[in-house]
Amino acid sequence: MERRKLLKVAAGALAAGGVGVVTLSTAFKPEVKATPSPKKLDYKENGTVWKYAHLSPEETAQRAYNEYPNGSCMYGVFKSVVSQLAEKVGEPFVSFPVQMMKYGHGGVNGSGTICGALNGAAALIGLLVEGKQVQDALAGELFRLYEETPLPVFMPKKPAMDFEPPKSIAKSVLCHASTTRWGKKADYTINSKERKERCRRLTADVAAQTVTILNNYHENVFMAHAKSNETVQTCMACHGNEGKLGNTSGKMNCTSCHDESLAHKVFADVHHKFMMKR
Amino acid sequence: MERRKLLKVAAGALAAGGVGVVTLSTAFKPEVKATPSPKKLDYKENGTVWKYAHLSPEETAQRAYNEYPNGSCMYGVFKSVVSQLAEKVGEPFVSFPVQMMKYGHGGVNGSGTICGALNGAAALIGLLVEGKQVQDALAGELFRLYEETPLPVFMPKKPAMDFEPPKSIAKSVLCHASTTRWGKKADYTINSKERKERCRRLTADVAAQTVTILNNYHENVFMAHAKSNETVQTCMACHGNEGKLGNTSGKMNCTSCHDESLAHKVFADVHHKFMMKR
Repeated sequence: MERRKLLKVAAGALAAGGVGVVTLSTAFKPEVKATPSPKKLDYKENGTVWKYAHLSPEETAQRAYNEYPNGSCMYGVFKSVVSQLAEKVGEPFVSFPVQMMKYGHGGVNGSGTICGALNGAAALIGLLVEGKQVQDALAGELFRLYEETPLPVFMPKKPAMDFEPPKSIAKSVLCHASTTRWGKKADYTINSKERKERCRRLTADVAAQTVTILNNYHENVFMAHAKSNETVQTCMACHGNEGKLGNTSGKMNCTSCHDESLAHKVFADVHHKFMMKR
Repeated sequence: MERRKLLKVAAGALAAGGVGVVTLSTAFKPEVKATPSPKKLDYKENGTVWKYAHLSPEETAQRAYNEYPNGSCMYGVFKSVVSQLAEKVGEPFVSFPVQMMKYGHGGVNGSGTICGALNGAAALIGLLVEGKQVQDALAGELFRLYEETPLPVFMPKKPAMDFEPPKSIAKSVLCHASTTRWGKKADYTINSKERKERCRRLTADVAAQTVTILNNYHENVFMAHAKSNETVQTCMACHGNEGKLGNTSGKMNCTSCHDESLAHKVFADVHHKFMMKR
């Protein structure tokens, strides 16, 4: 498919520019959009406080890497954080049924939808932070970093195999697209142990970045660096909630699945102005 | 985009055949593939039993519908089940932090990835059923029904608004595609109260079907009715884990994002046989 080749070239060019980076957030060139820091909140539910404690991103990454073989990506991210909070804070973290998060493997039960590492991170933010708007902002920051950064960058203390995975830019938050794009770049099959090592390290990257975001939020120094994906901004100007069409929603990179036809480029506005009822 | 028009026509034709259906599973014409019933298991973690009890799909649907305004789709599905188990079984369900599941709204924090109702259902299966293979089979059944059935079908006792949402076939488990396709079919914007009422009823449908599947599984009468999506079977024969290319994974309907080029149709096998290294 022609557009995929173009994307491949673009991704390759961007990836080439990412050599030498060492963490997910430093790897990303911020097009800075500072936002006011939200207030610190410990999350309460039915009188139970889910109290966050400052965690080390490095320790979290290593734990996520270690846990990956026990339950895959979503479980790895979720357990890396909850296991530390169980040690530092105790209950209610000790008795949280972390095993349930194994369902996120392969984009939810192997379906290829959302990357399990991101599903685990979003679940953590849902557990530890109160308020839809703030949750969306924190997860959104992570998701944009994931879409745009050459990954994985994590270097385990004791690598499970003698293999340094090439980096690729996922250009998507979907497991299916993220793993497929990496496989094309690195030339390994989807079922290879090399692909699994890539996802294992990426799980560590996402866990570390989640904790960085949670630390910053709870210490009142969170700033959003990743602005909305440009293709999303362009498309949603007309198609999104506030657009004149208002016929779709989402924040995923549009061009990962859609291309813009010549007809759309030339006639979309004319068509809308003179032909459409609303 | 041409392929989307074709899909729209196909979806319309299928939807027209679905008039008069009343539940998600009866709405779906099973292309039966019976599987042996798995053994009943109460899920244990760290000595805690997450004991399932038979639930009424109708009661579950009504609860999910009622809860939707308090936390959207994932929360609605998850709370509809856990609130009943808290009443019937007690702990550990009583103290489960169900609020965390609000993160799934709009395909995970508004991202448009997996439908939140399905994310909530998969999380429930992860909590209540042990074993990756069985979890994947149960969630897979639900996901295929969701992709292929004209929805929503739930009729609330006290509808929140005087509006019967038209049914559409999502052809995808992604929030972005599911809601957009419904909006096109029904001619309502994504931000309309009618679209929200559609998602509210669909949340009820997914909750009811999840409980039907869990009931059947725990009573040893689960049978998978939905076979793998045909496009997935066709594409994955070459591209999947076991295929000669093995370069991708996932179980989502392929044609929701991809079309097959003429060049692929004519030359793919020749190219693979004579040009590729592996």
